[in-house]
Order: sequence, then structure tokens, then C-alpha cells
Amino acid sequence: MNLRAKKIITTFSQHKIDALLITCPTNITYLTQYLRAEESWLLVCQKGLFFITDSRYYLQVKNNTSGIKVVCLKKSLADETISLVKDLKLKSVGFEERFLTFAQYRVLAKGLSTTVKLIPTRHIVENERQIKSAEEVLNIRKALKFHKQVLNYIGLILKPGLKELDILVKIENYIKTHGYGLPFDIIVASGINSCYPHARVTRREIRKNDIVLLDMGVDYKGYKSDLTRMFFLGRISRLIKDYYNILKGAQEKAIAIIKPGVSVAEVDKEARNYLAEKGLDKYFTHALGHGVGLDIHEIPRVSTRFDTPLKEGMVITIEPGIYLPNKFGIRVEDMVLVTKKGSEVLSDDIN
Amino acid sequence: MNLRAKKIITTFSQHKIDALLITCPTNITYLTQYLRAEESWLLVCQKGLFFITDSRYYLQVKNNTSGIKVVCLKKSLADETISLVKDLKLKSVGFEERFLTFAQYRVLAKGLSTTVKLIPTRHIVENERQIKSAEEVLNIRKALKFHKQVLNYIGLILKPGLKELDILVKIENYIKTHGYGLPFDIIVASGINSCYPHARVTRREIRKNDIVLLDMGVDYKGYKSDLTRMFFLGRISRLIKDYYNILKGAQEKAIAIIKPGVSVAEVDKEARNYLAEKGLDKYFTHALGHGVGLDIHEIPRVSTRFDTPLKEGMVITIEPGIYLPNKFGIRVEDMVLVTKKGSEVLSDDIN
Repeated sequence: MNLRAKKIITTFSQHKIDALLITCPTNITYLTQYLRAEESWLLVCQKGLFFITDSRYYLQVKNNTSGIKVVCLKKSLADETISLVKDLKLKSVGFEERFLTFAQYRVLAKGLSTTVKLIPTRHIVENERQIKSAEEVLNIRKALKFHKQVLNYIGLILKPGLKELDILVKIENYIKTHGYGLPFDIIVASGINSCYPHARVTRREIRKNDIVLLDMGVDYKGYKSDLTRMFFLGRISRLIKDYYNILKGAQEKAIAIIKPGVSVAEVDKEARNYLAEKGLDKYFTHALGHGVGLDIHEIPRVSTRFDTPLKEGMVITIEPGIYLPNKFGIRVEDMVLVTKKGSEVLSDDIN
Repeated sequence: MNLRAKKIITTFSQHKIDALLITCPTNITYLTQYLRAEESWLLVCQKGLFFITDSRYYLQVKNNTSGIKVVCLKKSLADETISLVKDLKLKSVGFEERFLTFAQYRVLAKGLSTTVKLIPTRHIVENERQIKSAEEVLNIRKALKFHKQVLNYIGLILKPGLKELDILVKIENYIKTHGYGLPFDIIVASGINSCYPHARVTRREIRKNDIVLLDMGVDYKGYKSDLTRMFFLGRISRLIKDYYNILKGAQEKAIAIIKPGVSVAEVDKEARNYLAEKGLDKYFTHALGHGVGLDIHEIPRVSTRFDTPLKEGMVITIEPGIYLPNKFGIRVEDMVLVTKKGSEVLSDDIN
């Protein structure tokens, strides 16, 4: 059994479980190294790792994993799991309550009720995933290195007359042709469209003196980059320039206090308070950031709603934004590694 | 209130609910015409439709919907829903058990326990969605019309020397440039890779005399096409030719019996029995098909596991396949509309 799985099993006693049913695809990836484990479940217990999947994926999983047992299901995922849990004579099975539907829970509970306890759990694997190993950080660095290349490319092609959609297609084309993945729908928001924090790409034509917000990521071996950059095409109003500098100031303030032991809420507040001093906090409508790794959004959330203390090895985004409804919006987003004594901005060399 | 929502409300009495919490994004789209309603919930009751979303989406939803109330959440989706349910003095709220996590259910149940009953439901909206209106069928036809154009384009560019990934990028580029969407990851599986029913696109180079399996769809106004076509590059072995003809035969057999009242299991069996006569049913490892509409996979599932009777207005795929482990695989997939007296193959003119 691999070390990650062994470590997860050591936590079982505190949760009073003798097995964990893993239904979050990226948690499965973390424990099996199998990428894109969709529509599959993984049962982890002392007797081994059981990868339950269907006939569409069975052979691929079998051919691309080692040290795990691959079960090709003949019934539903839940029904197959019931049989397996009974065969293994498990007594108390934890499940990931954030990644199991109520319907799936009902089937499991009905099938196992007489003999097995089902225990809702959360973050057992995610807690481990928060702290990145050197190899994981390296994968993120490689994603970022290519991300930089993509941004250079965009700098060369971006010009008035292009539609947002044209830019999107060119970027996606560039990323995929180079063998990297796209972890989420790229946001290309120009002019007024930038006022939507999560704008949809439209057919709007980019004009002279427009601002363009670009929020994108790339995927390297399952690990993600996530950055937002603003492009200014020509002359930009004094107001936008001022706001942009304030935003960068807020970001710097937040990054400056990052170190192990500081809570995510403090980091968020640091940026928010700075914006408040300038009277702009009401336009900063979302949390300051989030963890990044196998998922584009993972714990810790960098938000005033949580008090998670930062730890060495966490990788988080710091992304303050200012959105003036139906006018314009700006955001800057960088990726920061929490180090032993402070932090390293992993995207520091990316303009 | 729109007619679709009104119709859903008429079903409430039989489920003993006075509201339905809709957490399936495409069900929200169906009832609000708002595309890509991710990370949002919709509460439907006599007093109206309440679209609960967060600050990243609020303004976009507000600007692109009418006749509904848009709530910008300050807490979690579940907590905001609890407040809303209490404000509206609802007594019995149905929820979509296939689209609510156990964790979300727990929050709702805890917050509402003393005053409100929570009732698990399934398929309330999906049952309506199974039967496509003339307008919905038209959108699917338009998706298919463009799909045909994409296949013609592929026919022109496909040649030995290209990598699967190159083809993927060209297709995606073509689809997006023309303003259509991609409902799922395109499958381009060449040579031995075709043996995986859901193959990943690789950097494998396509060779002379290869077979290439292409399973793709396009999205037009939220409505999907879904077809699989085989491309034969040069001389193909007698065996593959024979299997291909058998596969087409199985598909024809199944389509021939489609009409209102016939069960999905009968349709699946018709194809499966035909393959069994030729000794090939053991290589047909998945269900025969599925409904298509706002979702790429929706009810009815065309499978021996269900006995749903077909109804006029359903749109389903018929997609038998033969997969020889670690050798090759072939599949043909077409889309069929159930008509008053039989069926219409919507993709009939697409080679």
C-alpha cells in the first residue's frame, strides 16, 4: 500500500471507522495517482485499496494503476460498494459527506443498515492534500512556468478587433496543443463585461483603450495554476489606474503577513481593510483566495468565514478584486506558497 | 410565472410538498432559461421562483432573467435557503436527492428541523424534461446540423501522421470559433485505443489503415447533440468490416422497434440479442443509450435495468459497441426522436 493511503488509514481510529469510502475524484487521484477518476469510487481499508468503476473505464484503470484492486461493477456504484463492504466484513465505514448525494447515501444506508455503521466525514483526505510535498509544488511550478508562456503568447496576439471568444479559442488551442490541460473555463472579460467577477466569454469585440480581465489556469499532471491578469489596451482612465494600484497594494499587504500560524481570516481582512481605507471594500464582493492543487478550489479557503491557521506547504491564491456594477471590474490573482518562515509568491516572475 | 414552473407546481400535491428546492443546474436552466446555472439553487413555490446565487454570478443572473426573484447570498447556499424557507413560511419542502450532497442535506435538516419537513424527491423536473417540445427538438436539430458540418470538416483533415490530440484541438477550435459549445470531452480513439469505451485522448499518431472512433457532441442554446462515428483510414481488416456491419445491424434492429409504449429494456435487448446471435454480446459492455437534451445523459436510460415505456417526444441515443480488450473497439451512435407512431432518426443524414 502506498504511503499516502497508509497515512489516511492512521486517522481511522480517531474517526471510529475501519474503512473510508472515497467519492471525491481528486481524492481518488491523490491516493492512486490515477488522473480523472470520474464516476468511480475508492474503498480504503487495511486490506487494501478497492477502485470501483464501470466497464467504460475498467480496462484503462487496470492498465494505468498498480498496487490496487480494480472492481468492475455489475450494478450501481452504491450496490457494488454494499457487496464489497459485506465481503470485507467491515463494521464502520466513513464516507465523504461533501461528495455523496443524499440518494446514494440512502441506498448505502438501506443496504448496510443491519450490520454496518455509516459515518459522515469531511476533509480527511483534503486535510492531507492541503500540505503539498516538494514533488507537488514542483508540478505546480511547472504548470506556472507554462502559464507564463501562455501569457506571453496572449500579450503578442491581443489587440483591438478580436472578439473575447476568438481569444478564448486561441488560448485553449495553445494550451492543448502543448499537451497541457484546462482546469476550468477561462474568463476573458473585456470592457464592461469585466464587472462580472465570473464573467462568461461573449462575442464582444475588444476596442481600443479597453481593459481585459483574463482569469485562467493550466493543468500539469493533475496540478493546477490559477492566475488573473489585467491587460490594458491603450490609454486607460486615471480612475482605473488608481484602482489598479490600490488593488495591487491590497494584495501586497495580504501577502506580507502570510506565514505559518497566521489565520486565513487575518489574511483576507488585511486586504479588505486596506480597500476599506480607500472606501472600496464594498466593491470587493468575494473571498480573498483559496487553496490550489489537484483541485482548482480546495481548502483552505482564504476567507473571513474561516479561521484555519496557515501551514508550511500550503499553496493559496491571493486575488482581491474591485467590481463596479455595470461599469468595470479589475482583479489580480497570484499563487503563494506558505514557507517555513513566510511565503514565496510562486507567480512572482509572471507579469 | 412561466408555464414550465406552473406545471411543476401542479405535481406538488402528489409529493405532499409546498415547495421544491432545485439543485440540479440543468433543471434550473429548464425552469428559468438561464444557461449554466452552476453553484446556484432555485426554490420553486406558489409565491414565485427564487434564484439563490452568490456575488460572482448575481449581476449576470439579474441581467439575464425575467419573472424570477434573484437572491444574492451572504451565507452558504444551504443557510440562505433556510432563511428563505422560513421567511416564506413553507411547511414541506421537497429536494432533489440526486443533486444534494449529504453534507448540504445535514445543514438544511438541522436548520429547518423544528418547523419544516424535508422530503427527498427524484425526477420531478426530469420527468417533464424527457418529453421535448417542438422548440427543444428544433434546438437539437440545429445542434445536429452543425455537428454534421463538424464531421465534414473532420473528414477533410483526418489523415495519417496527425496525433489524436491534434485532431481534438482542431475540432474544439472549429466548434468554439463557430460559437457552439462542447458538452463533454471529445473522444478521439485511434487504433488500439478504441478498445476503451471511454478512451482518453492521447498523443498517439494516427497510422495508415487505422480505425478512429470519434464520440463528440455540440451544444446549441443548451441543447446537445451526441454521435459516435468510425473513420476508416485506408484498408481495414475483414474482421473489423464484419463487426462493423453487425453493429449497424444491431442498431437498425433496435431502432426498428422504437415507438411509444415499447420499454427501454426491450430496445436494449433487441440490439443485445442480435449481437448474441453473432456471439458478440459479451463485447457489448454498456447500456444501449440514454436520453439527451439539456444534459448529455438524462432519463430515460436505454438499458435492461429499467422498464420505462417510451413516449412521444423523447430523444434518445442508440449506441451499440463492440470492444475487444487490448485489440480494438467500434461503436455507432445516433440520435432518435420517438414520434407518435414510431421514430425519426434525427442524425439520419449524417454519415
